[in-house]
Amino acid sequence: MPKVSDDRLAARRREILDGARHCFAEFGYDGATVKRIEESTGLSRGAIFHHYRDKEGLFLALAQEDAERMADVAAEQGLVQVMRDMLARPQDFNWLGTRLEIARKLRTDTSFRSAWLARSADVEKATLRRLEEGREAGRLRDDVPIEVLVKYLDLVLDGLITRIASGRPTDDLHAVLDLVEESVRSKR
Amino acid sequence: MPKVSDDRLAARRREILDGARHCFAEFGYDGATVKRIEESTGLSRGAIFHHYRDKEGLFLALAQEDAERMADVAAEQGLVQVMRDMLARPQDFNWLGTRLEIARKLRTDTSFRSAWLARSADVEKATLRRLEEGREAGRLRDDVPIEVLVKYLDLVLDGLITRIASGRPTDDLHAVLDLVEESVRSKR
Repeated sequence: MPKVSDDRLAARRREILDGARHCFAEFGYDGATVKRIEESTGLSRGAIFHHYRDKEGLFLALAQEDAERMADVAAEQGLVQVMRDMLARPQDFNWLGTRLEIARKLRTDTSFRSAWLARSADVEKATLRRLEEGREAGRLRDDVPIEVLVKYLDLVLDGLITRIASGRPTDDLHAVLDLVEESVRSKR
Repeated sequence: MPKVSDDRLAARRREILDGARHCFAEFGYDGATVKRIEESTGLSRGAIFHHYRDKEGLFLALAQEDAERMADVAAEQGLVQVMRDMLARPQDFNWLGTRLEIARKLRTDTSFRSAWLARSADVEKATLRRLEEGREAGRLRDDVPIEVLVKYLDLVLDGLITRIASGRPTDDLHAVLDLVEESVRSKR
């Protein structure tokens, strides 16, 4: 058997992740059965679970991918820009509904919980770095500890995800994000 | 058979709602089967569904009860106080996890969605009234439309509910709520 190249491996993983993302978005975490994941990826369970240990592993890989993208945007342009991107194309974030469905699992399943928290720690770190730069450049208010500002932005992000995931309109949130942005900025 | 008094009816409904609330908090929306609701209320399905049409009806009755309490606090002390109450006793809000699990149902089930939105409209109205009073009294900033402030507070509330429901720590959010409160206040 020829050795599979790294490119082909990466392409295969891409297929699996894209298919699984659609499947989670359409059927939810519990509804995304192995059979449905096979259908949406067009691959057999053997091929899928060769790359990812189980459904939980697939889910965490998708969450990791989101977290990396968010961390990149947060590092370059701040967490408010991450939120503005979500508002610009909410349909791309249907999958986020799954993040809400797993709240229960997060509360009760310790190992799942620590894998999940490690992932969101990257976004928090990127946001923190960006805020520190902002403070040095005098763009950021200096009367509130940076940790409080990170937690504040993170709380608003959780709210936005909940809003999008429950299919409520988001058109009217641009002005709200302006207010959020202004509330972390230097008043001078 | 003697006519059941209003007091006894109210007491029976109280038993049903309290039992159902525990059941939803423990097992989640889907996990709260009729059998489990019978066990947690100590009543037969006949007795339960004499008062509430079905599980969905029970769920919406609980949500309505929460909304009324929140609207009362919001009208008297503002939506930030509603959030401070949640921080003060997060264990009372375990049931909120269910609110996240239903995000999918909200997205896909139109009649459920409109019943749910009618409920949250009461809290928004109470918040709006309170903010209008605040603006008249000069406590509220006047450079941002009140509707934007309501949506802002509502978004933060959604974030807080998500935080509590996924069992993440909330001790560090008091300073965040101070920032939220300050950001809607008049600067003078």
